[in-house]
Amino acid sequence: MDYFEPLTRFVDLKDGTIPTAHAVQSRHLSDLKGLFNDATAEAALLTDDPLLYEVFEAADIPREDGHLLFSTTVLRPGVVGNEYFMTKGHYHARADRSELYYGLAGEGLLLMQTPEGRINVQPMRAGSACYVPPYWGHRSINVGTDNLVFLAAYPADAGYRYGPIAEGGFAEIVVAGSNGPELVRNPRYREMPGRG
Amino acid sequence: MDYFEPLTRFVDLKDGTIPTAHAVQSRHLSDLKGLFNDATAEAALLTDDPLLYEVFEAADIPREDGHLLFSTTVLRPGVVGNEYFMTKGHYHARADRSELYYGLAGEGLLLMQTPEGRINVQPMRAGSACYVPPYWGHRSINVGTDNLVFLAAYPADAGYRYGPIAEGGFAEIVVAGSNGPELVRNPRYREMPGRG
Repeated sequence: MDYFEPLTRFVDLKDGTIPTAHAVQSRHLSDLKGLFNDATAEAALLTDDPLLYEVFEAADIPREDGHLLFSTTVLRPGVVGNEYFMTKGHYHARADRSELYYGLAGEGLLLMQTPEGRINVQPMRAGSACYVPPYWGHRSINVGTDNLVFLAAYPADAGYRYGPIAEGGFAEIVVAGSNGPELVRNPRYREMPGRG
Repeated sequence: MDYFEPLTRFVDLKDGTIPTAHAVQSRHLSDLKGLFNDATAEAALLTDDPLLYEVFEAADIPREDGHLLFSTTVLRPGVVGNEYFMTKGHYHARADRSELYYGLAGEGLLLMQTPEGRINVQPMRAGSACYVPPYWGHRSINVGTDNLVFLAAYPADAGYRYGPIAEGGFAEIVVAGSNGPELVRNPRYREMPGRG
């Protein structure tokens, strides 16, 4: 029998990168165009098109049932209008797949939503192990002043489904208030029936 | 539809424990009786029956396909004869399930073996993300002088199969040599055909 070989990737403890990552996904503001609510602020920032985050995909692991994928994400601090820098957010293509986020540095929130728009928010920081159960869409948000860094692990056959969040958003969003992050209703939210 | 609720567990960054763990498994030397090769040294130490390791099972998550379980392990430093303190070691009951180990502190080795007795060893330390692919039996070994601490994540339906390693051992073992850890042939190893 052919066995997939064990492997180790070292996470750089200073910056959360994986120097020997199999692949690195860089997401700039233009990759999230239309996801922030303040279109004027977004348009102004698009001139510089800042880097929002990088995902260091650890290894080339088969995307098959039984395997696990893992990666680190380095999400920069900043705002677009009053919305913090965030990841695109997705459901899993295999909706019954879950995910574990282990916080390595910074201050963040893990925003989650059921297909029906019920919201759950969990804190992210060094040492926080946040569990995203099956069926919950999820997005990471950097509410601090330094990089938010975390390790993610998930079933290799989970896949990604960006459409429902790209089109309908989350029912609530996290904005910078006078006393820090606030969870507020998203005026642009649209439930995507049967799309969760 | 009923959704399992998201949750967060905080790993204590000083000692690797999860203070709000759902369950804690404590493994003393008596729980590993017969697994160390030096029976005389083992018998002498059994009088005190030292604690070898504790596993902090994060949460009460359904042991079903699609979910993930996660835990931290705190493995003490020490030796039984010339063999370092180690975990019992197991295959997964669902042999095609994998596991991710993320090192938090200390110095260790992750000893792995195919059902046919082919060995692979990976380093464990703060920042090491070690991937145990499907079918590989695995055991953690503390080769340092402080606690070895790591986070583990694995499919919730993986289960545990201790028998083959309890009865046949690993084909090679890690012993304390004059220049540090050495991998040597295990004279007591027996392949467990069809038991992997």
